Amino acid sequence: MTHTVDLNADMGESYGPWTMGDDLGLLGVISSANIACGGHAGDPVVMAATVKAALDKGVSIGAHPGFEDKQNFGRHEMAIPAPVVARMVQYQLGALQAIARAEGGRLNHLKLHGALANMATRDEALAHACFSAALDVDPDLLIFAIAGTAQERAAKALGARYGAEVFADRAYNDDATLVNRALPGAVIHDPKIAADRVVQMIQAKSIFAQSGKIIPARIDTICLHGDTAGALEIARHVKSELDSSDISVSANIT
Amino acid sequence: MTHTVDLNADMGESYGPWTMGDDLGLLGVISSANIACGGHAGDPVVMAATVKAALDKGVSIGAHPGFEDKQNFGRHEMAIPAPVVARMVQYQLGALQAIARAEGGRLNHLKLHGALANMATRDEALAHACFSAALDVDPDLLIFAIAGTAQERAAKALGARYGAEVFADRAYNDDATLVNRALPGAVIHDPKIAADRVVQMIQAKSIFAQSGKIIPARIDTICLHGDTAGALEIARHVKSELDSSDISVSANIT
Amino acid sequence: MTHTVDLNADMGESYGPWTMGDDLGLLGVISSANIACGGHAGDPVVMAATVKAALDKGVSIGAHPGFEDKQNFGRHEMAIPAPVVARMVQYQLGALQAIARAEGGRLNHLKLHGALANMATRDEALAHACFSAALDVDPDLLIFAIAGTAQERAAKALGARYGAEVFADRAYNDDATLVNRALPGAVIHDPKIAADRVVQMIQAKSIFAQSGKIIPARIDTICLHGDTAGALEIARHVKSELDSSDISVSANIT
Amino acid sequence: MTHTVDLNADMGESYGPWTMGDDLGLLGVISSANIACGGHAGDPVVMAATVKAALDKGVSIGAHPGFEDKQNFGRHEMAIPAPVVARMVQYQLGALQAIARAEGGRLNHLKLHGALANMATRDEALAHACFSAALDVDPDLLIFAIAGTAQERAAKALGARYGAEVFADRAYNDDATLVNRALPGAVIHDPKIAADRVVQMIQAKSIFAQSGKIIPARIDTICLHGDTAGALEIARHVKSELDSSDISVSANIT
Repeated sequence: MTHTVDLNADMGESYGPWTMGDDLGLLGVISSANIACGGHAGDPVVMAATVKAALDKGVSIGAHPGFEDKQNFGRHEMAIPAPVVARMVQYQLGALQAIARAEGGRLNHLKLHGALANMATRDEALAHACFSAALDVDPDLLIFAIAGTAQERAAKALGARYGAEVFADRAYNDDATLVNRALPGAVIHDPKIAADRVVQMIQAKSIFAQSGKIIPARIDTICLHGDTAGALEIARHVKSELDSSDISVSANIT
Repeated sequence: MTHTVDLNADMGESYGPWTMGDDLGLLGVISSANIACGGHAGDPVVMAATVKAALDKGVSIGAHPGFEDKQNFGRHEMAIPAPVVARMVQYQLGALQAIARAEGGRLNHLKLHGALANMATRDEALAHACFSAALDVDPDLLIFAIAGTAQERAAKALGARYGAEVFADRAYNDDATLVNRALPGAVIHDPKIAADRVVQMIQAKSIFAQSGKIIPARIDTICLHGDTAGALEIARHVKSELDSSDISVSANIT
Repeated sequence: MTHTVDLNADMGESYGPWTMGDDLGLLGVISSANIACGGHAGDPVVMAATVKAALDKGVSIGAHPGFEDKQNFGRHEMAIPAPVVARMVQYQLGALQAIARAEGGRLNHLKLHGALANMATRDEALAHACFSAALDVDPDLLIFAIAGTAQERAAKALGARYGAEVFADRAYNDDATLVNRALPGAVIHDPKIAADRVVQMIQAKSIFAQSGKIIPARIDTICLHGDTAGALEIARHVKSELDSSDISVSANIT
Repeated sequence: MTHTVDLNADMGESYGPWTMGDDLGLLGVISSANIACGGHAGDPVVMAATVKAALDKGVSIGAHPGFEDKQNFGRHEMAIPAPVVARMVQYQLGALQAIARAEGGRLNHLKLHGALANMATRDEALAHACFSAALDVDPDLLIFAIAGTAQERAAKALGARYGAEVFADRAYNDDATLVNRALPGAVIHDPKIAADRVVQMIQAKSIFAQSGKIIPARIDTICLHGDTAGALEIARHVKSELDSSDISVSANIT
């Protein structure tokens, strides 16, 4: 029996005169690109360039909406009512859809960004509102939902096609939430360790918590990061380790 | 032989806690609503409410993109390169498309706003870039082009379906451009005069300039305003005068 | 023995083409104007017009900084770190100071807006960061602090000149916090009841809770609202009732 | 007889998570830092960090206001009426003043940015409105005015203390305007040539045009750039060449 998994990364997070990330490097590794939509990062010109680059490399594209707070990169939680957030998600999603269509592409998936994503791992009503709003725009959209959280519960409750997501470089608590970044060992910096762990979690169909606990979980897509030093290194190790373990990488999540 | 004409007005120009215009009043008169897309005015919540209200009234909807400068309502010209403006148009158009789709509607047309529209009446390359960008997103989109200007030339050059537009309440120069608002008589305030003139121009298939000059012109859609005192009054007079002159009002521009 | 109290109201909350509130009406009643600084509302042109209008009427002026979220009018809480919020407060304060100085005026006070103010009634560290940041800009600034909350504790801990503030039209819980707007009786709509209550609270040097509980409190300034129907009516009743009770109205809080 | 000249550079042009320029490198060379004010670049946190860094190095600080268009870095001209632009200048200037004061510093000068600066080299009324607005906020402010342009004429007409500015790395036309960047030789990339030319222009009290023409000019401050590759190299060469030519570098423009 063979495994297939999707590799995703955030990109298009440059803005006007400012650049961020090594998008071209990551596009050589991943199968799904989460493209910022002008909320926490990105602008129409950056979005178009990122869509083109992804299509050129045959990488599947998706929307990555976030809170409209570029100064803080959408990283701080905001108590905006779910119906208002839901319209913001539609707005950003539609903006990227249009640019993708103009470039001859089509969005495959949606993944929430930053503080909005974090809130939606705890608040199922918020996750439901965001995902439902996105599906109202495109019923065929694949929803990326962080495995084992309220995001996954909301996606299931909606009967949505979804991809359950785990992180290559983050340690997990026993309840499948991420270890707080402020705690030791929260972020895995060693490419070899991160890559081995990803392969083992996929093969075991489980999340491995920091404590050693094994949490059975659906794993469809692996989140790689591109905005930190060494991130591309981890991405390449993960890809290479998947290849040598006969796990194929593909955006076709079923 | 009977005439048909479309009546359009800008709406959805409220923003957050601030309201503008009598959208509901105008929706009782017009056949096409130009909905602001969060650039010069509007936000995702206002856009959704406006789309719903228009669909409820059976009014055709379209995108009304403008420069991203709410403080100045998109009214000041900006020397932004055409390719950058074109991406902005796609961004705003797509955002409204998504919200329309979520509400079960579909955009019929696109009309440029304010200073962007003014620049595009003189600069055919800019008009071409904006319209072409919009058609790349949706090839079936109807383009509203101000009659007799570079906007109309660009729409023709693109082979686009377009609606040639004249203004109910503005005086014209001999070259079919609008009389500068700073000059006497530039704006027609008398509802009766405005309404009679509209009917006569449609019947004569010509624009009547302030000087008396008659400029043959295609006239598909009449722009009504809603943000000034007395504007709704003019709108109602125009509609009533069209009705009693057996000119039918419809968004179906062929 | 006579009492003196300050009457304050938020203003300058128009934005670009959109207007809000009856600033001129309120300026005939209040002694201190809290002027929006372009964060939750206002822009440089509106700020200048509001400063001028207040100076013309001899009303004392102050800065009213809020979260930079005009769509939501700064009304939703945001988990932005206190040091970042503190710099935002300095930014907005300075912007208004400059415009005041250009008009020959000088800011007398600072009052936090909306969700930022609410958060600071519970989070003393946040209140301390904001007030301390403002005093670093101008050590003579008077701080408006909501009576009996973490705002007042922070102002005291800083040794700041401050004005303890109560609300004319809001009901109180037993711990001096405001009754949630969603609950019945949270907002007092009857001008006579509001006005009587204000006078009695000043004379009793106490906040009267909804339950009947009397909470001793320093009361230096009364917040009046201007953005709701009937608000100006309440403001005028309060002023008139203070006048007939020999309580003088003045921005000179000592 | 000895010469003194000021060396200035733009900085604080990072924004939120995005960084730009080598501010620390330039602070080792220049005498005056033009700090972005959150319009075309910068935010309150970046502004505070930049003010601190400049004060630490003993570098004089000034405000560098620009059009509020971060996506285009304030580089595109906007037909905003001069009185509206003037309020924007006061707003941005005041915001930076407050942050400087909080850090124990004081702004010495003001220099317009990008497209606003370009417009003000041609449009004396605009230059006058901006400089006059800034002086209304702080009458002691030193105005940086591009030598030989409408900026300098406006500064003179206002009777302002001003510093006439030339560019180290840009070629000049015969009328003292800059050669368009699109033309060959417009930008001087060789550090040695740039440095020699600066020294010679100071000694000759003249601008040397590309044609060989010598244009007598007051030269008080030299603009160095930091945002392009090799810019810091040019800056260091200029400083070193000034040192070895006994031209002292100081922000004290008299």
